Amino acid sequence: MKDSVDHRLRGSWTPEGPGAVELAPKAMRWLEQRIGECTADAPVAPNSAIAVAESRIPTAAHAKLVAIVGEEYVLDDPAERLGRSGGLSYVDLLRRRYPSSPPAVPDAVVLPADPEQVQRVLEVCAEHDIGVVPFGGGTSVVGGVTALRGDKDSVLVLDLERLDRLVSVDPVSRVAVFQAGVRGPDAERLLSVHGLTLGHVPQSFERATIGGFAATRSAGQASSGYGRFEDMVTGVRLATPKGEWRLGVAPASAAGPDLRALVLGSEGTLVVLTEVAVRVRPLPERERFEGFVLDGWERGTLAVRHLAQRGLLADVTRLSDVDETASSFALSGGWKTGLLRRYLGAKGIAQPCLLILGWYGDAVQRRREAVRSLRAAGAVGLGAAPGHAWQRGRFTGPRQRDALLEAGACVETLETAAHWSELPAVYERVRSALHGALESPLVLCHVSHAYETGASLYFTVLAARDHSDPIGQWERAKRAASEAIAGQAATISHHHAVGTDHAPYLAAEIGAVGVNVLRAAKTAVDPKGILNPGKLLPPAPQR
Amino acid sequence: MKDSVDHRLRGSWTPEGPGAVELAPKAMRWLEQRIGECTADAPVAPNSAIAVAESRIPTAAHAKLVAIVGEEYVLDDPAERLGRSGGLSYVDLLRRRYPSSPPAVPDAVVLPADPEQVQRVLEVCAEHDIGVVPFGGGTSVVGGVTALRGDKDSVLVLDLERLDRLVSVDPVSRVAVFQAGVRGPDAERLLSVHGLTLGHVPQSFERATIGGFAATRSAGQASSGYGRFEDMVTGVRLATPKGEWRLGVAPASAAGPDLRALVLGSEGTLVVLTEVAVRVRPLPERERFEGFVLDGWERGTLAVRHLAQRGLLADVTRLSDVDETASSFALSGGWKTGLLRRYLGAKGIAQPCLLILGWYGDAVQRRREAVRSLRAAGAVGLGAAPGHAWQRGRFTGPRQRDALLEAGACVETLETAAHWSELPAVYERVRSALHGALESPLVLCHVSHAYETGASLYFTVLAARDHSDPIGQWERAKRAASEAIAGQAATISHHHAVGTDHAPYLAAEIGAVGVNVLRAAKTAVDPKGILNPGKLLPPAPQR
Repeated sequence: MKDSVDHRLRGSWTPEGPGAVELAPKAMRWLEQRIGECTADAPVAPNSAIAVAESRIPTAAHAKLVAIVGEEYVLDDPAERLGRSGGLSYVDLLRRRYPSSPPAVPDAVVLPADPEQVQRVLEVCAEHDIGVVPFGGGTSVVGGVTALRGDKDSVLVLDLERLDRLVSVDPVSRVAVFQAGVRGPDAERLLSVHGLTLGHVPQSFERATIGGFAATRSAGQASSGYGRFEDMVTGVRLATPKGEWRLGVAPASAAGPDLRALVLGSEGTLVVLTEVAVRVRPLPERERFEGFVLDGWERGTLAVRHLAQRGLLADVTRLSDVDETASSFALSGGWKTGLLRRYLGAKGIAQPCLLILGWYGDAVQRRREAVRSLRAAGAVGLGAAPGHAWQRGRFTGPRQRDALLEAGACVETLETAAHWSELPAVYERVRSALHGALESPLVLCHVSHAYETGASLYFTVLAARDHSDPIGQWERAKRAASEAIAGQAATISHHHAVGTDHAPYLAAEIGAVGVNVLRAAKTAVDPKGILNPGKLLPPAPQR
Repeated sequence: MKDSVDHRLRGSWTPEGPGAVELAPKAMRWLEQRIGECTADAPVAPNSAIAVAESRIPTAAHAKLVAIVGEEYVLDDPAERLGRSGGLSYVDLLRRRYPSSPPAVPDAVVLPADPEQVQRVLEVCAEHDIGVVPFGGGTSVVGGVTALRGDKDSVLVLDLERLDRLVSVDPVSRVAVFQAGVRGPDAERLLSVHGLTLGHVPQSFERATIGGFAATRSAGQASSGYGRFEDMVTGVRLATPKGEWRLGVAPASAAGPDLRALVLGSEGTLVVLTEVAVRVRPLPERERFEGFVLDGWERGTLAVRHLAQRGLLADVTRLSDVDETASSFALSGGWKTGLLRRYLGAKGIAQPCLLILGWYGDAVQRRREAVRSLRAAGAVGLGAAPGHAWQRGRFTGPRQRDALLEAGACVETLETAAHWSELPAVYERVRSALHGALESPLVLCHVSHAYETGASLYFTVLAARDHSDPIGQWERAKRAASEAIAGQAATISHHHAVGTDHAPYLAAEIGAVGVNVLRAAKTAVDPKGILNPGKLLPPAPQR
């Protein structure tokens, strides 16, 4: 059970852990000059201030669950239930701070030991019509693990953290099978013994699980080199209310539609992933991180497009816009920004956009061609320092957010993707929507995932928190951004998934027919609709 | 309407066209020494010998169809209907030769002009409960376009050949939108005006269509460089009995499951593809084809695996086993096989396996590393000649089959794919099944699609035709091979799709739950089950 409760309970990434970051007063002053003065909350409501109702799991079902997983793994304790009462979005964190708008709390937490127990738990829940929220790292930022009940009287969280084994490694085929609850660092540690790596490193890496990566179609920071998580999955083992299901026997197939793609991204609404087979690669013998600066967003994105379309992307490729670059330079503190600005000015760069590249393994030739392409685009090399700075800070985003949240900021991220020809318009629309919906916000953006046909846009939004209606403040901004994306040649999510937050926009993206197909697939495996109520699918239409 | 009837009617690729090949008497003698004497059929039954029943399309429906597409595009003529009475498998061809086992003939052929007409035709067919067989190039070798009726009283072929436009090109995003009926060569011709290429070149290229590539999850000969067709598809426009449906707005997404994957490979049973958006690339400025020989299948597949796992595959990579290599050398005639054998013997190669590599564009560095890797594996270079020979003959397979069929041979292909660690066992199982089911067959095999985690196996089977039961002879062999594949760590099809021939084996691959999910998805968009009856899905279980 490790530290499964403490680090989630209060609603932050690492409340007191060694990883917490402090905001430098200078950085906070810089920020407040832009977004206005931030006021810290009154001390966070202690756990006991959130009312937790009695568990409504029927006694008979409770007994059956205990018989399957053992008494110590059916948790009714309010602290345990509160500890899995949602994910880690800004709103999730606020709900744990304000007793007036508390999170949805599950009736119980069940921790099965293996895929067979997961299957049996689902069968009990189907029999007793209990909602089931599959729970991995709990890092969803779109409401994907909110303990909604839907039409169920009770709901339990199915925490997969005990499914923590590397099941098998096939070094010839380079396929490894993991249980779904293995966390990112553990997956790498288990593979490294075999000289292998998965190479999937999203910002949630430290906590998120193999099952969660698959359920949400995660994309890691090195996706240009290693692919999106869905590209790595060769097979899956699934528990469903209609029985176990296995998919994926070959490296490629034309045996009808690829049903793995229906499971990947189904966010716990269709199946519970219990094992995931993934393509693995040898551990790279070396890595190299470096920074470049391009003059302006248009030139920057053009340079990244050329890399993507010529097959020259670095494994990690991340281009910040002008505002994000300025903000990084200012907030990182260590940077001598005045000096840097003068240096770049002397090189003719008026609107610096920082490009971070990370190369794994033997990439000498590819890097040489990429650098040639960048120089032709007017890029100025900054050497290894900014690359290493990014690398050191690659997982600090959530911790920085904790600190900013504590300091009284409204701070959240959102993302989309579009084809290259649409990217400038989508960028402007989303920025403009956010600037219109918030008072004096700081809107930062980067491209972190580039493809031959387009790229992602990842926005970070900062504003002074409106203490009169902090949740409403963000919800209005999010709605404005979502409406600027949905149905307009952009996807409502490039790698954060749908959850509750994007469900209202799904039909604009996949059509009414698409929604009906998803609903039909769900009914085929989960006829009572016990799996993750209220996520992914928009509410059923009134009849 | 072009040559839509003639080239299909008799049941061969190019019955009298300029592309027909003649078998050299020497080659035929070589073959008969191995498979026994072949006896040519009595002259092929003329068209009129196949009885074609009266069309059963209801009069009211017929009038509505005429109102949508125009009288000249609703064809009742027996010759037109016979011309679309199936695909191009060995059994399809036999059925057109033997009046005693005739093909299933549709009641009509309808040729809509555009996506809107396709949609309206589907609505009329749904209203009148008429089966619909979507028809592109008609090159299915698994019964994918057989005009089965299922539970319908009548069935029509929806021939998409008039949907032959390049709808749009976005050179910035490198995305082109094609109507579904565009054939391979026309797609390349239309793109070449823009300096672009699709790079999808399966053996069926000359006839098969963009819609067909998508509906069957096609893989082209250059799939190592350009990807499988499903990897190229960025978006689709679909007609369904429940209305039009569009998917694909971004280069990548986490907005729930990727429903494009449910459409790709659905083989006309779920939707009719009317437009397909594909990733395109600049036309390569140069190409290079060459041959190598490795000593034995084990070393050969190991060498290809190392190329695949080190990212060094040529765009075209094709390794023949010992029997296929010997057969190529013998049948190609132009090869001085005695001389070649002595040369290879002197180089220490006892069991030659021919490896063809094709490089497009600027591949100097990759090729250098690949050749280094091959030399380390003991490969002997044969220079450009065998590469060019393969290139010249890359589309002659179907024509050679026509000639062999005419000469009295049983000749067919089948394919699978497996992970590298399973590949040797799958290879042996399938070979052994075919050797057991046929008398003195020649069983040839090659790997033509390699991945990091595994590869395809493509078998060519030759035997003397059993004139007492020619269809049964092949069906027994095919059943033996399919049973050696299904449910045993291999896929029932790597790129030929399911159709009717593989439908009985689908459940072994995707599970009973998977079949139910597919069935539910179908019911959601095609509640009456009018689309392509009898394909892909195994027959519904008895209740």
